[in-house]
Amino acid sequence: MIILDGKGLFKKIKVDLSLEVKKLIKLNKKAPHLSAILVGDNPASQTYINAKVNACNEVGFKSSVFQYPDDVSENTLLKKIEAINKSEDIDGLIVQLPLPKNINSNLITHSISPNKDVDGFHPINIGRMVLGLNCFLPATPFGVITLLDEYKIETAGKNCLVIGRSHIVGTPISILLSRNTKMGNATVTLAHSRTSNLNDLTQNADIIILALGVPAFLKSSMVKKDVIIVDVGIHRVPSDETKSGYKLIGDVDFDDVANKASCMTPVPGGVGPMTIASLLRNTLYSAKKVIY
Amino acid sequence: MIILDGKGLFKKIKVDLSLEVKKLIKLNKKAPHLSAILVGDNPASQTYINAKVNACNEVGFKSSVFQYPDDVSENTLLKKIEAINKSEDIDGLIVQLPLPKNINSNLITHSISPNKDVDGFHPINIGRMVLGLNCFLPATPFGVITLLDEYKIETAGKNCLVIGRSHIVGTPISILLSRNTKMGNATVTLAHSRTSNLNDLTQNADIIILALGVPAFLKSSMVKKDVIIVDVGIHRVPSDETKSGYKLIGDVDFDDVANKASCMTPVPGGVGPMTIASLLRNTLYSAKKVIY
Repeated sequence: MIILDGKGLFKKIKVDLSLEVKKLIKLNKKAPHLSAILVGDNPASQTYINAKVNACNEVGFKSSVFQYPDDVSENTLLKKIEAINKSEDIDGLIVQLPLPKNINSNLITHSISPNKDVDGFHPINIGRMVLGLNCFLPATPFGVITLLDEYKIETAGKNCLVIGRSHIVGTPISILLSRNTKMGNATVTLAHSRTSNLNDLTQNADIIILALGVPAFLKSSMVKKDVIIVDVGIHRVPSDETKSGYKLIGDVDFDDVANKASCMTPVPGGVGPMTIASLLRNTLYSAKKVIY
Repeated sequence: MIILDGKGLFKKIKVDLSLEVKKLIKLNKKAPHLSAILVGDNPASQTYINAKVNACNEVGFKSSVFQYPDDVSENTLLKKIEAINKSEDIDGLIVQLPLPKNINSNLITHSISPNKDVDGFHPINIGRMVLGLNCFLPATPFGVITLLDEYKIETAGKNCLVIGRSHIVGTPISILLSRNTKMGNATVTLAHSRTSNLNDLTQNADIIILALGVPAFLKSSMVKKDVIIVDVGIHRVPSDETKSGYKLIGDVDFDDVANKASCMTPVPGGVGPMTIASLLRNTLYSAKKVIY
């Protein structure tokens, strides 16, 4: 069984990005600059933001984080985003989700200018992705296809099952894998909470992408031999095996499925680092103005 | 076997639309106005435009057609579209496809303002559809779900196979049927030219939507009993049975499949009229400003 090593690929991508930054500096251009807006004090959000800032530092990108308390007004956020949209210095802007319930997440994320929307959440970027036009691809789906590509996994003509239809993961991955492109051309089925025959679907799939958010959901009895598995789930569960008393697991029962699959992403170290890699690549594309 | 009578439903929708126009007039508002741009002298395009204009006349909409020769410049079209985008009198604008090869279709159709894009082809409308936000739904997919809804066909939890991944039919239908909405929640598989096991997929489908463009492709041996079939294909084929020497058929071998299916759209008189119905409804929505 081959481990689809997102962590390792992320390291290679960081080396490439560092070289790209050096080239820009040599041409007297500025380093790419990623900004993030963080609202409230959700520890997971803080961890994700730290990982993104650290990655920026490692590759020589500039980064900036604008922090606001839980009770910040939509208007304050919209004004900040408007200022960043106009800034010549900032190439990419992300708003760390989730936002507090009193804030309209769509209103906020869709006010980011499409040409700085390096998370790829704006309707224009999603619409352009559907149409096969140049755009910022959503970071996690972009990371998944980059990882499959690295391991030369053929998607064309394969039965690909995506479980979970979120706007930021499942739905866009299903669209990307269906398109007539190199890492597309799969026959994609999008399963979700209303799917009635999930076991039949998992049994018939050559590639399964899991983004349903249920710890250790997928068992070996549900899949066929040599299946390829990409696990987007990440859950913190209690554990006796670690000092901290918890460990991270995905939507796949990894040890159980490992003897049947041909390739699998680990959790952690699979899709997670690839999402950050994609965010950095999109920020570079924005700085180099290769998309818009 | 139940015929999903798009022609009949279109008549009912036209009655509803006529009443809506009368209401607007009573409120001293203007009738909705649909404009079309037609380039060249493709007879099929002329026929489609005539059908749309006639439908406008029947329901009391205003319509206007701007015709250009095959060798019109992109710039001339873009200027016309810009003027229509600014017009307070025109609520909806469509550009009849296909355009001549020397013209960039995307450039032209995407220059239509999203709030007059009643064909639903603009990336913003497609992106908003993916995200479940208010938008102009693409006319044919909108027509298909309207027809399924009229016949109270349950889509939730059903295995739905869409064959064909065009930007204006197959791909958006697959997205619409997957969403968490009343006429969605289906488990959708999107098949296309690279699909390797189409026969397995058709055998397992509860609902099949065909938009692949191959005359009489689907045979009864390929489907399970009581399947529901929506045929988006339309082809003119030679025939001894008609005076004109030709007849219209779809992507389904209708007579062959009729004894096995529970519900089927005919060709003509199925999806075609529903596309026009959707175009008129979108134009009304634009006039009433209920989307944007």
